[in-house]
Amino acid sequence: MRVLGVDPGLTRCGVGVVEGVAGRPLTMIGVGVVRTPADAELGQRLVAVEQGIERWLDEHRPEYVAVERVFSQHNVRTVMGTAQASAVAMLCAARRGIPVALHTPSEVKAAVTGSGRADKAQVGAMVTRLLRLDAPPKPADAADALALAICHIWRAPAQNRLQQAVALHAARSPITSKGRTA
Amino acid sequence: MRVLGVDPGLTRCGVGVVEGVAGRPLTMIGVGVVRTPADAELGQRLVAVEQGIERWLDEHRPEYVAVERVFSQHNVRTVMGTAQASAVAMLCAARRGIPVALHTPSEVKAAVTGSGRADKAQVGAMVTRLLRLDAPPKPADAADALALAICHIWRAPAQNRLQQAVALHAARSPITSKGRTA
Repeated sequence: MRVLGVDPGLTRCGVGVVEGVAGRPLTMIGVGVVRTPADAELGQRLVAVEQGIERWLDEHRPEYVAVERVFSQHNVRTVMGTAQASAVAMLCAARRGIPVALHTPSEVKAAVTGSGRADKAQVGAMVTRLLRLDAPPKPADAADALALAICHIWRAPAQNRLQQAVALHAARSPITSKGRTA
Repeated sequence: MRVLGVDPGLTRCGVGVVEGVAGRPLTMIGVGVVRTPADAELGQRLVAVEQGIERWLDEHRPEYVAVERVFSQHNVRTVMGTAQASAVAMLCAARRGIPVALHTPSEVKAAVTGSGRADKAQVGAMVTRLLRLDAPPKPADAADALALAICHIWRAPAQNRLQQAVALHAARSPITSKGRTA
């Protein structure tokens, strides 16, 4: 199973591709960050995020995309940008019929460290160990993206099969919209 | 000046096209709602919003897109869907090089009714009068989209020229992303 993890953000969007199955050693296929300049127009930044995600999908052809679930409770100042970047990542995947899974930060931390309240350093250390890397991926957004992909591979293979079936069904029955023109 | 107003939402995304210039009677070109079913996968809903917005851009070729600015303070339960739908609308416009403007709900209400705290009925009544319609557009999301377009036409023509220049400049200097592949 090949999974693209996305830690959404407008300034830095972490992306990481991991291949493997639960219970066996995992392999890192790629890791990086899609960046957009803070002084660009919001629309242009979203276009840049889209282009970046599209490149990762083109290059690595993941079977699943795992995106961090965004909550409106914390980080009020940055949460809008995070929600908007995550929307673009989900859109890019769904357009290609790739199932999208959302995992909360605590689910991801619990999956890779055993504790839902682990700090960034602990997550980085476990990602390094699990993927047998020489050093923790930098910046933290890149490590978080890999942790999301690992979390997805380890969580509920049955859930993945369900999502794939739903995505296939949705791709066959397109949703329509209505409008009126004067 | 032809403006597409977008009142973003996942369940109902209001869209309305208005043509005119400040100080002269305005014309409604079209109004409608892009709907997505609440029980669909989030990724599929975003794809449906994208397809709906694309159809409106194709059909009406607006020179500007005005989107309601989303705040994280209010409506915590629905704000994520609103932010995600607005991201898709901004992305669709920016991809075509169409300048995107954000207006707050109170700016829109103040523009069409004279009061930033007007209720939905008052906004609907003024949209009906300003566009010389027979009845207020339904649902309220559709009327709000028209109000956004009117607000944009009436606010700061100088600001529009600035945005157009910025969008043109951004389209000429694409933003790049970095990554590393194992």
